[in-house]
Amino acid sequence: MRPVVVLGVGLIRFGRYPDVPVAELGQRACWAALDDAGVAWRDIPVAYCGHAFQGSTMGQRVLNRIGLTGVPIINVENACASGSTAFVAAYQAVASGMYDVALALGVEKMSFKGMIDATRPDDIERPLGTGAMPTKYALIARRYMDDYGLTAAALAQVSVKNHANGCRNPYAQHQRRLTLDEVQQSRMISDPLTLYQCSPTGDGAAAAVITTEAVARQRSAGPFVRVAGCAVGSQVFVPGEPDDISEITKRTSRRAYEMWGGGPDDLDVVELHDCFTIAEICHYEGLGLCGEGEGQHLLASGATGIGGRIPVNPSGGLLSRGHPVGATGMAQIAEITWQLREQAGERQVTGAKAGVTHTLGGGGGMACAVTVLTR
Amino acid sequence: MRPVVVLGVGLIRFGRYPDVPVAELGQRACWAALDDAGVAWRDIPVAYCGHAFQGSTMGQRVLNRIGLTGVPIINVENACASGSTAFVAAYQAVASGMYDVALALGVEKMSFKGMIDATRPDDIERPLGTGAMPTKYALIARRYMDDYGLTAAALAQVSVKNHANGCRNPYAQHQRRLTLDEVQQSRMISDPLTLYQCSPTGDGAAAAVITTEAVARQRSAGPFVRVAGCAVGSQVFVPGEPDDISEITKRTSRRAYEMWGGGPDDLDVVELHDCFTIAEICHYEGLGLCGEGEGQHLLASGATGIGGRIPVNPSGGLLSRGHPVGATGMAQIAEITWQLREQAGERQVTGAKAGVTHTLGGGGGMACAVTVLTR
Repeated sequence: MRPVVVLGVGLIRFGRYPDVPVAELGQRACWAALDDAGVAWRDIPVAYCGHAFQGSTMGQRVLNRIGLTGVPIINVENACASGSTAFVAAYQAVASGMYDVALALGVEKMSFKGMIDATRPDDIERPLGTGAMPTKYALIARRYMDDYGLTAAALAQVSVKNHANGCRNPYAQHQRRLTLDEVQQSRMISDPLTLYQCSPTGDGAAAAVITTEAVARQRSAGPFVRVAGCAVGSQVFVPGEPDDISEITKRTSRRAYEMWGGGPDDLDVVELHDCFTIAEICHYEGLGLCGEGEGQHLLASGATGIGGRIPVNPSGGLLSRGHPVGATGMAQIAEITWQLREQAGERQVTGAKAGVTHTLGGGGGMACAVTVLTR
Repeated sequence: MRPVVVLGVGLIRFGRYPDVPVAELGQRACWAALDDAGVAWRDIPVAYCGHAFQGSTMGQRVLNRIGLTGVPIINVENACASGSTAFVAAYQAVASGMYDVALALGVEKMSFKGMIDATRPDDIERPLGTGAMPTKYALIARRYMDDYGLTAAALAQVSVKNHANGCRNPYAQHQRRLTLDEVQQSRMISDPLTLYQCSPTGDGAAAAVITTEAVARQRSAGPFVRVAGCAVGSQVFVPGEPDDISEITKRTSRRAYEMWGGGPDDLDVVELHDCFTIAEICHYEGLGLCGEGEGQHLLASGATGIGGRIPVNPSGGLLSRGHPVGATGMAQIAEITWQLREQAGERQVTGAKAGVTHTLGGGGGMACAVTVLTR
């Protein structure tokens, strides 16, 4: 496997674009990534498009109007991990020597949709209502509160932190500081999760151009953002049993860390899948940033704020930057790339040399993708 | 890139399964492929699932109930070329050295659906009705008839041939011999295409286990079915312009032939994308089996029948075996594998040593996948 670097990234502000076709959202992100990389579309030999709900040949509908170059375009789906799975597929295409350059894209238009239900019509969970994502995560939160004495106020603090970060990110869907009281007093969605503890639905797109380190060196002296490790995993727990979202994160991140040759103590910045407040607490533990049951203490200590020991979701995360499903993983790649290049503006993590992205798809365990980037 | 072989294939008979969940269709094909390969699911380290219309995390829904091993499961979509694109992705995963074994799966349940319209609500083609697949191909047929003097009877003969082949295939959805008169007198769908010149909708699944030649040699002395070449391409013509379905086939097959080091004259058997009768005529030319405008003469000569110089669609093709979109490309892989192993029963092409599969997706040019298998 050859060393691979991120040559350029592009993102559009997540939000609601009722009058913009989804293909155009994708095009804007691709143009931004190509510009950032200094690469023309005609020099891209393969493209991977991640999305979950946009129907057939989404990548073609985005890329055909950038240029009809006839290259392989491969659409990749893995629920909320679709964009990050597309990135891993693009990485493998370059690392393996099949292609010298690849474009990875994540795109989604969610503003037409209501709440996502992970069940099928014939699943027993549907009539019980436990297939709806807020319900799934509310049950996880209740279990965690019972096991580890997490309070509702401590849980809501995740949202306060991430919205404060999102205020510093011009690409965030929600750029509004929230008080703990506002988060706790917002409408109850599924007890204990109030509205501001659930990631918003929205539209968005993000893209990256990757290449070999050798090709990158022909263009500049660096420093380059390297893809140091990545992995995709799926669940090992039984459908219908309580979802153990930490287990899949732990297993998948360990494979990515092993490929990197580093570990959680070597990370400087983290973008993780905070689809609901409780998810961030669980994923601190899954990613190895702290021990089991210690997530709430890590948060309370301030360690995961910008300026803390291990800043988590400086972009605002899914809670504040937004969560247009297929675009999320690629937006995390863009954020970590900017952090490692010291281009993250007011939300810059000083001296960040290694960062990780983490997304989880499909009811908490159908797919997980983890990528380590280093400078 | 390491040499890769097809270790096992599995298929369920295409048709209508109103009472069988789509996940179970997929499971049946996977079990058959694993049995044929003599490999246990626990020894499969990665899986690729091709489908077009089954919603989020289809691969997980199939494979989680075979066993929760936690391996990466990647869903791949490329319209009618979804299954074949999943196969190419699996090939690349093994050839590149990332995995020693991979499972590729194609699955689709179409019986709930009507005619596929390739347009989006905002496309100008929708109110014109030219986005419906039969209309698209009827226009291609009319153009071809005008350019090359193809008659309606000569065109209908494709369906007579493929249904005769399908009668010999226990996996075919339609196992009924049709006369030329029956084909021509069947209900007009889009002039000149009558009902029996359009592939049926249906449900189906097919799967394959692939591995390196080195691993295969540890298991048996062979001979092995090798993946000699493969390629994926996308369109270079302009949306709204007449679809040149031969061009993308020509360009993509040439890349697969180049990787193989052979050409159309070296092929013994072909499975191509006869979604409508006219498509088979055009793809004879695109795959290089004959020159431009000569497709009808190749057919009339009997060369593409079983026992002819270059048998095409011995399985019955899409017209007779059926066309559950995402399953089609994988069913072609299964058919060519059986042909090269001399396990194709009454439809065996004597002494077949090299075969090609060809699928086209998304309105004639969004995606094309071509794979050459050899013994």
